Amino acid sequence: MTIDSSDHGFLKRAVDISYDHMRSGEGRPFGAILVMKGKPVAEGWNSIFASKDPTAHAELMAIRRACKVLGHGDLTGSTLYASGEPCPMCLGAMYLAGVSRCVYATTRQEASRIGAQTEIIYEEYLKPEAERAIPCIHVPMPEASAAFDEWLAKAR
Amino acid sequence: MTIDSSDHGFLKRAVDISYDHMRSGEGRPFGAILVMKGKPVAEGWNSIFASKDPTAHAELMAIRRACKVLGHGDLTGSTLYASGEPCPMCLGAMYLAGVSRCVYATTRQEASRIGAQTEIIYEEYLKPEAERAIPCIHVPMPEASAAFDEWLAKAR
Repeated sequence: MTIDSSDHGFLKRAVDISYDHMRSGEGRPFGAILVMKGKPVAEGWNSIFASKDPTAHAELMAIRRACKVLGHGDLTGSTLYASGEPCPMCLGAMYLAGVSRCVYATTRQEASRIGAQTEIIYEEYLKPEAERAIPCIHVPMPEASAAFDEWLAKAR
Repeated sequence: MTIDSSDHGFLKRAVDISYDHMRSGEGRPFGAILVMKGKPVAEGWNSIFASKDPTAHAELMAIRRACKVLGHGDLTGSTLYASGEPCPMCLGAMYLAGVSRCVYATTRQEASRIGAQTEIIYEEYLKPEAERAIPCIHVPMPEASAAFDEWLAKAR
């Protein structure tokens, strides 16, 4: 996977965003920019303090804003530039939105220095479910499964 | 991990939410409710069609709304009830918010029936990074690492 000068330029922009919003006190120093066909579509930054929303990560915000700008939820063909390696939540959002590629500057290990949980949370995904810090309990309920049948009937 | 009748009641509510918002056309049949100390704090539902936002999953919305209601981002001690097993994005949000426990009714495999990508995306987390569908490329940039130093200096 090659990296060219436009990649460096957009990644630098993501880093600049991280400084701007850290200095304003909105959140931790993480910035992102979503680029489609060589053109910037939307920017995002960590605003977990300003919004009191722990999901307000730079990458998630850039993805949500890009979908709003484009008027649809399909980011196939896009590249997400992030000053820091995306956490598992943001990686999941990338898959859901169809982001095609990601370029990032600092690793999950470096982010641990400022208290980011990225590295620890990634490790949870590798554990058997019973050993994870958050127990997820499956309680089958026939009416929940039946909702999928109703959905499929609607779709036909 | 024991399940009691209040768990069943809240899970049933999550399922009811899934029906309501599927029938209104807002999204796929997934509902969630965030409960703290036995009291419901916020509800969420899949609204990916209405919002054109592929991250508008039931669990993520319930977490975001609960933080707004409580005025802070710490959901330690809470249980998230979800009609369907949380996807990797929503699981990550649970870790970031400190959700303590999750109870769900349908599995990731069942959700595949209606086209949900949950099972496929979880498999991506188990692969070596180079083999994932979304390449994530590390391009070190000294100024990105320096943002963490500035953050630490501010914090002191």
